[in-house]
Amino acid sequence: MRLRSCPCSSPRWTTASRPRSPTSLVARIRSSDLGYLDGPGPLAPAFSAFADRRWGWKVDPARIHLATDVSVGIVETLRLALPDGGRVAITPPVYPPFFELVEEARAEIAEVPLLETWGTWSLDLPGLEAAFAAGAGVFLLCNPHNPVGLVHDRQTLEALADLAARYDVLVVSDEIHGPLTHPGVRFEPFAPIAEARGARSVVVTSASKGWNLAGVKCSIVVAGDDRTAELLDRLNDEVACRTSILGLHANVRALSCTDWLDDAIDKIVANDRLLSQLLTEHLPGVVYHRPRAGYLAWLDFRGIGLGDDPALPLREHAYVALNSGLGFGDQGRGFARLNLACSPDTLREAVTRIASAYPASMQGSLVWRVA
Amino acid sequence: MRLRSCPCSSPRWTTASRPRSPTSLVARIRSSDLGYLDGPGPLAPAFSAFADRRWGWKVDPARIHLATDVSVGIVETLRLALPDGGRVAITPPVYPPFFELVEEARAEIAEVPLLETWGTWSLDLPGLEAAFAAGAGVFLLCNPHNPVGLVHDRQTLEALADLAARYDVLVVSDEIHGPLTHPGVRFEPFAPIAEARGARSVVVTSASKGWNLAGVKCSIVVAGDDRTAELLDRLNDEVACRTSILGLHANVRALSCTDWLDDAIDKIVANDRLLSQLLTEHLPGVVYHRPRAGYLAWLDFRGIGLGDDPALPLREHAYVALNSGLGFGDQGRGFARLNLACSPDTLREAVTRIASAYPASMQGSLVWRVA
Repeated sequence: MRLRSCPCSSPRWTTASRPRSPTSLVARIRSSDLGYLDGPGPLAPAFSAFADRRWGWKVDPARIHLATDVSVGIVETLRLALPDGGRVAITPPVYPPFFELVEEARAEIAEVPLLETWGTWSLDLPGLEAAFAAGAGVFLLCNPHNPVGLVHDRQTLEALADLAARYDVLVVSDEIHGPLTHPGVRFEPFAPIAEARGARSVVVTSASKGWNLAGVKCSIVVAGDDRTAELLDRLNDEVACRTSILGLHANVRALSCTDWLDDAIDKIVANDRLLSQLLTEHLPGVVYHRPRAGYLAWLDFRGIGLGDDPALPLREHAYVALNSGLGFGDQGRGFARLNLACSPDTLREAVTRIASAYPASMQGSLVWRVA
Repeated sequence: MRLRSCPCSSPRWTTASRPRSPTSLVARIRSSDLGYLDGPGPLAPAFSAFADRRWGWKVDPARIHLATDVSVGIVETLRLALPDGGRVAITPPVYPPFFELVEEARAEIAEVPLLETWGTWSLDLPGLEAAFAAGAGVFLLCNPHNPVGLVHDRQTLEALADLAARYDVLVVSDEIHGPLTHPGVRFEPFAPIAEARGARSVVVTSASKGWNLAGVKCSIVVAGDDRTAELLDRLNDEVACRTSILGLHANVRALSCTDWLDDAIDKIVANDRLLSQLLTEHLPGVVYHRPRAGYLAWLDFRGIGLGDDPALPLREHAYVALNSGLGFGDQGRGFARLNLACSPDTLREAVTRIASAYPASMQGSLVWRVA
C-alpha cells in the first residue's frame, strides 16, 4: 500500500502496479487549458455541495475566495484584518507555520497553550478569554488541531464563538484536516457556529490534505458572515490569480471523490490502530493518544529519556526520521510527530528500528508526566 | 492555428485535431508525485543552462529561488528590500500589476514615464536619476517592456546599472517576456550587466509567457550579485512551498523545448506583420509600433477620436475586446492593448469589425500627437 493522490477518475485507491488515468488534470493539460484564474469558478459550488453533504454546512458560494494554499489564505486574511499589526492568539503545540505566518503578517503572537490532562488535549477557554481581553485581534484556530488530532466539540466551539463575539475577535479557522475526520467523530466547521452567535470568522481549507494534493497549490478562503465577507472582498485580485488552474480542477474533482476519501480514512485508522499495538508491544514508554482526525501521530517520548528533541537521536541512532516536536512550540519539547499515511510495513519497520536502537530498560520506563 | 501550451513532448506546436501527450506533467500526475516543494531543485540547473545557451548569461544555480509566479517574486523581494516601506520607481505605461504590487508591499510609487518620440519608446535615464536621487530604493524594470514591446539595449542597461550603483538602488528586473524576443533583436538579461558595474539586481522570470503556462504557477527569482543573494536567502521558506510542483516540472521541460519556442515566436512575428498590414489597409489612423519582443501590440487610437479609453467603445460598438490602456498608467490614455497570440483569422476579424464600426472619415484621420 502507498498513499496516492486521488486519481479523480477512480473511487478507490490505486496501486503502483495499476495506475489509472487522472482524467481531470490530463484533459486540461492535453487541451492546453493552462491560463490564469481570476476566481474560484466551479470550485465554489463544488465545495459548497461537499460541505453540505459531509457536514450540513450550507456555504453561500459567493463567500468563497481562492488562494494559492492555506498558508497564503491565512497570511492574506491576517494582513487585511490587522493592517497595522496587532496580536494573534495561537494554541501550541500547533502547526509550525502558524508562528511564521503571524510574523509574515507583521503581527505578534499571543500563545495560549492547549491544556493537557493525562494526554487529553483541549482549548484553554479561560486562557483565550484573557488573551482576547488583553487585545488579541485574531485567533488562529486549528480545527481539527494539528499535531494532536483534536476535533473540537460543538460545545467548545460555541463557547469560543461567544468569547469571539464578546471581544470582537476574528477567528481564522484552518480546517484543512476536516475532511479526514475519523469514523464516529463529528467534525464541526466553525463558521456556522460563529455566525449564529454573532462572531466573525474565516475558514481556510483545501482538498490538499484529504486527497494528497499539497503540491498542486489551490485552497479556498470562506467568509463566515457578512462583515467578514466585506473584509475578504478587499483581497488583492492577484491572490486568486496566484492559484494553480490545475490545482483548482484537482480540488473540484477531489471533492466529488468521497468514496476515495473514506477509503483513505479507513487505511489511516487501520495504521493508527497498528501503531498503538506496535508501541504497546515494543515501546511501552512512548505515550500515544490516538488522533480523532488526520494522519498525524503526536508521540510523547518524555518517558524514555531521549531529551528535548527526540527526532534528532531517533534519526541518528534508529535511522527513523520524524518531525521534531520543537517547531510546534515549547510544548513540543520531548515530542515528535509521525506520519501515519504510509504503508503498514513502514510503520512496523519504524517502531522495530526504534526499539532495537535503545536498551529494553529505556523502552519501558513509564514515567508519566502531567503538563 | 491556436496558441497552445508547450506540449513538452513535441518540439512543434500541436493542433487541436492532433493532441500530443504532455508526458512530463502526465507522468507526475500518474505517479501521484504531487507533494510540497521546498526549493527549485531541477529548475535551477535547467534555467541556468537555458540562460547560458540563449543569452550567454551564466547563472549560479545557488542564486535561484522559487516563487509562485513573477508577481509573488516581485512583492516578496520588495518586502525584503523595503521592510519599512519606501519608494519604488516604475516606468509607465507599464504592466498594470506593477502599481498593485508596490502598494501590496506597502511602498510608494515614483512614476518615471517612458519617453516617447514619434512612437519610439525609451527609458528616461535623467528622470530615473532624479527619482533615485530623491530616495527611490528600488527600480522595477520591465525588460522587455510590457506593453510597448521595448527590448532595452545594452548601452541603456549599462547606463541604468551605473545609476543604480551610484545611488545604491536595487533593480528588480521582470524578464518574463525575455524568451519571446523577436529574431534579429538581442535581449540582454540585466543581472550580469548590473553585477559587472557594482549594482544590485534581482531578476524574476518564468516559462509562463514563452510557453503559455501562466496558470500552472511557478517562477524563479534570481539574485544578481552577492549582496542580493544574502537578501534573497532571507525569503520566507513558505515562498518556495507555495509553488506548484506541476508548474516546476512544466518549467523544467519547457526550457528545453527551444524549437517549440522559436516556432511560437515565428507565428507571433507573422501575426505582428499581418496586424501592421491590416491596420494600414483598414485603420490607417491607428498608430502601431511593432514590438521587439512578446505578443502584445500597444495600439494608439488617439488619432481616430475614440476617447480616453478606446477599449470601451470598441467592445460596445465593434464587439472586439482589447485591454484598456488606462490600467497601464496615465500614459495609456487613448491606447488599448491587443494580444497577437491568436489565430490570423481572429486578427483579421478584429480589425475588420473595428473598421466596419466607424465611419471611414474616422478610420483615416491621421492626427499625430507627440507625447
